Amino acid sequence: MTTRPTSESLAAGPSLDDALAANRAFYHAFSSRDLATMESIWARGVPVLCIHPGWPPLMERAAVLSSWRDIMKNPASPNAYSRNDRAFLYGKTAIVVCEEVLDGGVLAATNIFIEELGSWRLIHHQASPIAVQIKEAETPPPRHQLH
Amino acid sequence: MTTRPTSESLAAGPSLDDALAANRAFYHAFSSRDLATMESIWARGVPVLCIHPGWPPLMERAAVLSSWRDIMKNPASPNAYSRNDRAFLYGKTAIVVCEEVLDGGVLAATNIFIEELGSWRLIHHQASPIAVQIKEAETPPPRHQLH
Repeated sequence: MTTRPTSESLAAGPSLDDALAANRAFYHAFSSRDLATMESIWARGVPVLCIHPGWPPLMERAAVLSSWRDIMKNPASPNAYSRNDRAFLYGKTAIVVCEEVLDGGVLAATNIFIEELGSWRLIHHQASPIAVQIKEAETPPPRHQLH
Repeated sequence: MTTRPTSESLAAGPSLDDALAANRAFYHAFSSRDLATMESIWARGVPVLCIHPGWPPLMERAAVLSSWRDIMKNPASPNAYSRNDRAFLYGKTAIVVCEEVLDGGVLAATNIFIEELGSWRLIHHQASPIAVQIKEAETPPPRHQLH
C-alpha cells in the first residue's frame, strides 16, 4: 500500500522506516562498490565515526571515507547484506542494529543516523564478529522494537 | 578552576564533559562490580541496546542488564578502563568512542548517551577487539579485513 505523507509526518522528519531504508542503502552501496552513493550516505555537516572489525576508531570524515574507498576498491572485498535490522529513534537520532552477513562470516553492526537536509545520514558505523549464537528460546525477540 | 554553570548552560542540558564523565562512571562501575550504579547508568525510559564482544545485539533492558550482572558477578570478569575517550554531540545525543583496556586486551568501544532527567544515560554500548594498531603519523588504510 502506498501512503502519501501528511504535512505532519513531513514536519516530523524522516521516519524509522526511512532509517531502515538508509541502512539497506548503506549495505547496497557497500556490496555494489558504489563509492559515490557511499559518500552521499555519510553526513557532511558533523563529525563522522567508524569502527571497522579489528580496528581502532576512525574519527574524521576523510579517514572514514578513505577507509571505505580502500575496502570497496579491494577485489577481495566481500558482498554484504543486513538481516534482523531493528531501528530505534532517540529524538533526532536513529540507531539501527543488525546482523551484517558477509561472504566470510556474520558481524553484529550498529549504524547511527542523524537527519541532515531532510534525510537520514550516517554518522557512525561499528561492526564486530559474532562468535556466540544466543538460543532463541533463552532470549525471546523484543516485542516492541520500534517506538 | 571551578565555574558556576549559567542558566544558559543549564538550559542547554548536560555537556560533552558530562558525557566523558558518564563514560568514566560506566567503566568505574564495571571494574568495581557496582551493579547498582551500573543499573542507574542505563536509561530507563527508552529502549537500550548492547553488543558485547562476540555477541549478537541485545535489545531489551532486561536482557542488557542481565548480561551485565552475569559479567560483573563472574570472578573472572576483567578490570576495565577507557583511554583516548572522544565525545561528540549530535543534538540531544552524545557519542563517546574510546579504547577499552581490559586485563586481556584492548577493545574499540562506542557508548551512546541521551539526556534523561537532566543527566546523560547510556542507551547503547558496543565493544570489539582491536587487532590492528594504526600509527598516528601514517594512519594507513585497511587493506584486507572482513570489511
